[in-house]
Amino acid sequence: MRHFTKPDDEDIRFFRDIAGDKNVISGGDDIEPYSHDETEDYRFAPDVVVKPSDTAQVCAVMKRCFERGIAVTPRGGGTGLSGGALCVFGGVCLSFERMNKILDIDTKNFMATVQPGVVVETLHNEVEALGLFYPPDPASKGSCTLGGNIAECAGGARAMKYGTTKDYVLAVEAVLPDGRPFRAGAKTLKNATGYNLVQLLIGSEGTLAAVTEATVKLIPAPLVRRTLLAPFDSLETAAAALNELFLKRVSPCAVEFMEKEAIKSAERMLERSFPYSDSEALLLIELDGSDADAVNADVEKAGGILLEEGALDALVAEAGHRQNEMWDMRRAVGEAVKKISVYKEEDTVVPRAALPALMRSIKSIADRHGFTAICYGHAGDGNIHANIIKGDMDELRWRRDLPALIADIHRAVVGLDGTISGEHGIGFSQKEFMPIAVSQTALEIMISVKRAFDPKGILNPGKIFPDAPGEGTSHSGGGQ
Amino acid sequence: MRHFTKPDDEDIRFFRDIAGDKNVISGGDDIEPYSHDETEDYRFAPDVVVKPSDTAQVCAVMKRCFERGIAVTPRGGGTGLSGGALCVFGGVCLSFERMNKILDIDTKNFMATVQPGVVVETLHNEVEALGLFYPPDPASKGSCTLGGNIAECAGGARAMKYGTTKDYVLAVEAVLPDGRPFRAGAKTLKNATGYNLVQLLIGSEGTLAAVTEATVKLIPAPLVRRTLLAPFDSLETAAAALNELFLKRVSPCAVEFMEKEAIKSAERMLERSFPYSDSEALLLIELDGSDADAVNADVEKAGGILLEEGALDALVAEAGHRQNEMWDMRRAVGEAVKKISVYKEEDTVVPRAALPALMRSIKSIADRHGFTAICYGHAGDGNIHANIIKGDMDELRWRRDLPALIADIHRAVVGLDGTISGEHGIGFSQKEFMPIAVSQTALEIMISVKRAFDPKGILNPGKIFPDAPGEGTSHSGGGQ
Repeated sequence: MRHFTKPDDEDIRFFRDIAGDKNVISGGDDIEPYSHDETEDYRFAPDVVVKPSDTAQVCAVMKRCFERGIAVTPRGGGTGLSGGALCVFGGVCLSFERMNKILDIDTKNFMATVQPGVVVETLHNEVEALGLFYPPDPASKGSCTLGGNIAECAGGARAMKYGTTKDYVLAVEAVLPDGRPFRAGAKTLKNATGYNLVQLLIGSEGTLAAVTEATVKLIPAPLVRRTLLAPFDSLETAAAALNELFLKRVSPCAVEFMEKEAIKSAERMLERSFPYSDSEALLLIELDGSDADAVNADVEKAGGILLEEGALDALVAEAGHRQNEMWDMRRAVGEAVKKISVYKEEDTVVPRAALPALMRSIKSIADRHGFTAICYGHAGDGNIHANIIKGDMDELRWRRDLPALIADIHRAVVGLDGTISGEHGIGFSQKEFMPIAVSQTALEIMISVKRAFDPKGILNPGKIFPDAPGEGTSHSGGGQ
Repeated sequence: MRHFTKPDDEDIRFFRDIAGDKNVISGGDDIEPYSHDETEDYRFAPDVVVKPSDTAQVCAVMKRCFERGIAVTPRGGGTGLSGGALCVFGGVCLSFERMNKILDIDTKNFMATVQPGVVVETLHNEVEALGLFYPPDPASKGSCTLGGNIAECAGGARAMKYGTTKDYVLAVEAVLPDGRPFRAGAKTLKNATGYNLVQLLIGSEGTLAAVTEATVKLIPAPLVRRTLLAPFDSLETAAAALNELFLKRVSPCAVEFMEKEAIKSAERMLERSFPYSDSEALLLIELDGSDADAVNADVEKAGGILLEEGALDALVAEAGHRQNEMWDMRRAVGEAVKKISVYKEEDTVVPRAALPALMRSIKSIADRHGFTAICYGHAGDGNIHANIIKGDMDELRWRRDLPALIADIHRAVVGLDGTISGEHGIGFSQKEFMPIAVSQTALEIMISVKRAFDPKGILNPGKIFPDAPGEGTSHSGGGQ
């Protein structure tokens, strides 16, 4: 196992001097919320939580940790789904919760500059009040932060029309592991000035530098939004119907997929019933635009195509109660499925036309291994979250047989020209599977890039890359 | 000056064995076309030109050069505007002209897989015949290649609505300087699987790895396109009117800007006259969409706003002769301005609302230094190409005073929150100005990333980064 310095009393005094007494937690029950994110049942407590209020404090903390060899793990809203914010080697949890200001909304250039701790939904609300729009909308938007979204390249339902976080970040300020701050990118829509460090940082899961400020692109807000719910009698019919939509040139902003067991879980959790919850699969389709007639015509066209392709109905909801109800259901699904029992979530993504094949594969692999998989997700961009449910399986078998099952799913995904994470990241929970999706050469390049940024390896250690022999963290508390 | 091994007879024999006799040029007049791109008047002849036909050949050539310490410069269509393809240290010019196949157009998933030597317009035509659309459209689209576009992160007029090359590349195959091939990305719209090496390679100007295959995203082709020409009596009025368009929520796919001297140059070169060529500035605005009524309504709205904001007229062209004429003029401007005399081109980019200030700055800086600047470019995304014209200025003064003028322009751009290249790259011609836009820390990170990919520094040396003392290339033939 890798060795990091455990912060001592002098370090903690230093952190208190920098960030203020009440912004440093060095023990007691208050540490607990920082010992996990929303990834399965992992628990790793940091030795210290430090909550800086500005970039200078981040620099000072990082510099100290670098000099002392203390592990540092940046943390946003703690809603990650691959364990990116887990302090797997203890050390310092660098929480950005106090750096939560929207610094500027530039209504002339359609841009916003934010601190990393801003909650995504707060940014949505502020810019929408000005007729602007920041599209990335992970299901956790009410509590996840811009910094975390940048770290994981978060997507969400609207990614299929509007792209993911990487399509909106124009510039960042960030702090290197040795404490040096730097800026990358510019407040411009185009930039060909040296290597694209902004894009390199996005999705790097806080392993290269800690982002302390970001300028994001905004777009004019769409004025009209319609939602369409289509039930199907099989997963594959649903996936195939979806392909027809695209081939016939309908361009929804979101196409969400839920299978029956996922819908039923949401009904149980919310104690409400949803339309067509007895069907094998539901597609939830959203269309938006600036012109009501054009959007309505598209909804009509989409409904017709879906019915032709086997939908049992096509229920339209305009803005308002019914539309919110449909999205409440969709957004509840993730949490609801995870409430069933201990679970393991896979963030599979394939070319859209391969969705029917992906569905078949996941179900047959789960069957073959004797496990249950429940699927839902962003079908529009081929991104399906497959939750493997422990249920009443005995602990020993769950632990013993799960890795082989996951490896089979990942191999199937890669065989369909897809990859093993669409929007959750690799973090801690998927790192041992990286070699299935990424060649040895590409992994070596990534590791050499990591070394270029972080020669001592103190920043968010134990993430993305498979453990080297003897370096493992899995025996140190993972999965408890 | 840095030392590279000059390829000897044995190396040339090796290259001939690999690529075939007729695909290796090792001297004579045939070398000349490979000694320049379209950047000003630079000339640097390679020692050898090698034209591989597949990835295995690329690997073999690279491996040999790596082992022998021979400089290798990848080359696409040779249309670059920052000298990215110049063999400033001689060595091997690795020309991708024979790797020019479209390998697959996937009409189900809206993706295409291409070799790097495919000409961009060829891809446009092939996918548009299938109702699909690959938006990046540099002015050189008739001869530039996908590989070159990836190297420089090429943009073009439609970038303001559709983004640049980086927004379309999903996956690449590339070869490291030591000859090892690797794949990065996947055939998926979303990907959060490790560092985004695809985005790191885009815009890295062929200094990290040579791209040998790329999978790009396509979108449904817009069905309707309208062009609007608006003349103005001053540059600043034009730039201010443009801002009003955006504030009033018109979303064109292109807004091009030309000042009088640029239009006049195009008229002279094409020996044709264009409407309103006597006005001080022209905006050429294109709107597109899938619904003719909606696009026409937008054109009407745009025309009204422009007239209100000081346009002298608003001339609408539907698809056909008049529309082509307008775009012929725009596309001819670059070449025409450069025909006036020796010139130096700056690829300034600022937040759009800063355009009037940028115009003022460029003109007043040029005046102060006693130079002439002619401006045109992609106003919609704040990207203005400023051409400094030598005219009849004496050679000594041109050479002596130009660097200070350029530095002043770049400082003004950065002062407006912009940066020094929007879409041309830094390459050879801008590298000494990098410290104006990029901090020492960010430069050090970029250099350490370069070392991670290319420890011997053989791949496209002499680009992007300012010369270290004693390492200069400027005395070795630049600017001749």
